[in-house]
Amino acid sequence: MRTQVLIIGGGPSGLLLAQLLDRKGIDTIVLERKTRSYVLGRIRAGILEQGMVKLMRKAGVSERMDRESYVHDGTVIACGDEQFRIDFTKHTGTPVVVYGQTELTRDLYDAREAADGEIIYEVEHVEINDAKSDRPYVTFQKDGIAQRIDCDYVAGCDGFHGVSRQTIPLTVRKEYEKVYPFGWLGILSETPPVHHELIYSSSERGFALCSMRNDNLSRYYIQCSLSDRPDDWSDQLFWDELKRRIPSDYADKLVTGPSIEKSIAPLRSFVTEPMRWGRLFLCGDAAHIVPPTGAKGLNTAASDIHYLYHGLVQAIHDNNNEGIDRYSERALARVWKAERFSWWMTSLLHRFPEQNAFDLKMQSAELAFLQSNNEAQSALAQNYVGLPY
Amino acid sequence: MRTQVLIIGGGPSGLLLAQLLDRKGIDTIVLERKTRSYVLGRIRAGILEQGMVKLMRKAGVSERMDRESYVHDGTVIACGDEQFRIDFTKHTGTPVVVYGQTELTRDLYDAREAADGEIIYEVEHVEINDAKSDRPYVTFQKDGIAQRIDCDYVAGCDGFHGVSRQTIPLTVRKEYEKVYPFGWLGILSETPPVHHELIYSSSERGFALCSMRNDNLSRYYIQCSLSDRPDDWSDQLFWDELKRRIPSDYADKLVTGPSIEKSIAPLRSFVTEPMRWGRLFLCGDAAHIVPPTGAKGLNTAASDIHYLYHGLVQAIHDNNNEGIDRYSERALARVWKAERFSWWMTSLLHRFPEQNAFDLKMQSAELAFLQSNNEAQSALAQNYVGLPY
Repeated sequence: MRTQVLIIGGGPSGLLLAQLLDRKGIDTIVLERKTRSYVLGRIRAGILEQGMVKLMRKAGVSERMDRESYVHDGTVIACGDEQFRIDFTKHTGTPVVVYGQTELTRDLYDAREAADGEIIYEVEHVEINDAKSDRPYVTFQKDGIAQRIDCDYVAGCDGFHGVSRQTIPLTVRKEYEKVYPFGWLGILSETPPVHHELIYSSSERGFALCSMRNDNLSRYYIQCSLSDRPDDWSDQLFWDELKRRIPSDYADKLVTGPSIEKSIAPLRSFVTEPMRWGRLFLCGDAAHIVPPTGAKGLNTAASDIHYLYHGLVQAIHDNNNEGIDRYSERALARVWKAERFSWWMTSLLHRFPEQNAFDLKMQSAELAFLQSNNEAQSALAQNYVGLPY
Repeated sequence: MRTQVLIIGGGPSGLLLAQLLDRKGIDTIVLERKTRSYVLGRIRAGILEQGMVKLMRKAGVSERMDRESYVHDGTVIACGDEQFRIDFTKHTGTPVVVYGQTELTRDLYDAREAADGEIIYEVEHVEINDAKSDRPYVTFQKDGIAQRIDCDYVAGCDGFHGVSRQTIPLTVRKEYEKVYPFGWLGILSETPPVHHELIYSSSERGFALCSMRNDNLSRYYIQCSLSDRPDDWSDQLFWDELKRRIPSDYADKLVTGPSIEKSIAPLRSFVTEPMRWGRLFLCGDAAHIVPPTGAKGLNTAASDIHYLYHGLVQAIHDNNNEGIDRYSERALARVWKAERFSWWMTSLLHRFPEQNAFDLKMQSAELAFLQSNNEAQSALAQNYVGLPY
């Protein structure tokens, strides 16, 4: 088999790149280790920057998103019973869009199917070969049978645990990491959201986030211990703890119900450099992870896709390598800003085991400054809605 | 002896308060543990916020300051050979003023002398008594003779090591502290400053600051180990190290010369709460210490003096205790913001022994964001020139 761009990973990054390239007449094959239903079962982020929204439109897959998504002009930040609002639209002219990653991925699958684009599911033992040459190829097994695809470029969209990053030799690769000493316990429940915007809440008992997917689907999180397991938390325990961590006017009107999903995610900051090695390009979680506090995971993957898409079109159609040669540099410049913002939001709002009384005062002083200062709010808003590509 | 306001500590805070109260016809006595020449020998900050400048004018001691000081409309922030400027005046309408604390203290002494205000030097064994009653009194020894002064109020302006804070019982007092794992080695030299504005420089070798007092008096600092002693650093070693830590265009034109003062200061963040106990009021370093990175030490003392001065005038002239009753709350609200800013500037610009590669990337990403973002620069400028009283 042969294709122009072989895409490893059938999550939203890989599918979006495939769809964008398809509309430019560039041939792609997507390899996915799992099944389509497995990918769609993963609950992920729900906040889209305008950059991601525009890419979905450019890829021709925005019809349902444009109809069903919610526009959020701001967010609430709470500290104990104090709260204030950051107005994104006032500060930046731009809101964010609420549309679940699951829905977005479903739309991308549907579009891929409608375009007769190839996705090979349940591939095993994927290996990227000769990435430093002009003729890379990828080998894998499907149903126990060894296969090989030759290609011009490989896009590594296979996430943190994927093979793409591992393909870059350790002599070339430099990795940066911070592991946070807590996790997020999240539940999804078919209940109306407690508020029409998100609530980021810093409390003495730890961080909490009130989020939503639609008018009858809520997503709530609380900071938890890394040693906790979802089974340790009955729904009742979760709701009780959430109520203690958000301002009482919200706690009083919180509508609870049975969880339809409950899971714990660790929090990690991670970046690998470079993001390009020969004809292999890393995108999204394959190259970088952010803690979810700033809603930057999918959105930072989207900016990678933006740079790579333009670089590949330039290389393939115009025989101009400027875009792919500068891919790593351009993508990383924006990645590090998103990493900084995510680290800062996480540091500002969570309780850390090693914090002393002075450190806690610095958190509350920073929140007080943010509450009182227009420019600090604007800087947050600009980061939250997404820095320019 | 009897006075209305007994001021413990003859540094700039105590003298400024004395001078302000004197002009309202309120009687004060200042107690100082050292001699006048000792106090004037201490090299301290040189950057004044407008709030401090206004207080000096209000106290009638601004004549020489207004004539001899320098106005700085901005500052340079450097990272390796990269540099950018924060324009204070553009962002806030307000510059800062460069006038050495030594000069300012000398002006305050001269004014105190001209007003025939009492300063008792070289007092020992100072004790504050009955601060929770309506009739506090202070005992001390002068030339071996025990003395007592009765007063209505006690202003504790005697610095971090003074007796005033210690007078507040530990059951009442809560202290917050962070000790930084490095110091500042500073030298004063009779050489023209390398630049007409300050240069805050983050380098791989540690922080450096190029500062100035006047056209032929420069003050330079480098981050050093806490185990270093000034004698470990010859002038030549200092200049060589400074040049390695600042952008090369400044290093190339740096004029060096013999140091006329060389010392190492540890960096500490410290706050005590409350700042009022009965009729005892803590001001400046007696209640809080900041690392010098944000130039907030003297300026935060000035805001304490502002609140206390107004509170005392209101209490003594109008028999209205609102100002002194709310002194601690008002002073601390501003103190914590200055503490946050000083901690943030320090964290941003220094090298910390425990930093890993990710932490270093967060510093450079934060500097890159600051360099690129107008609102982040504005937030810095607002803090640097001084948040409103």
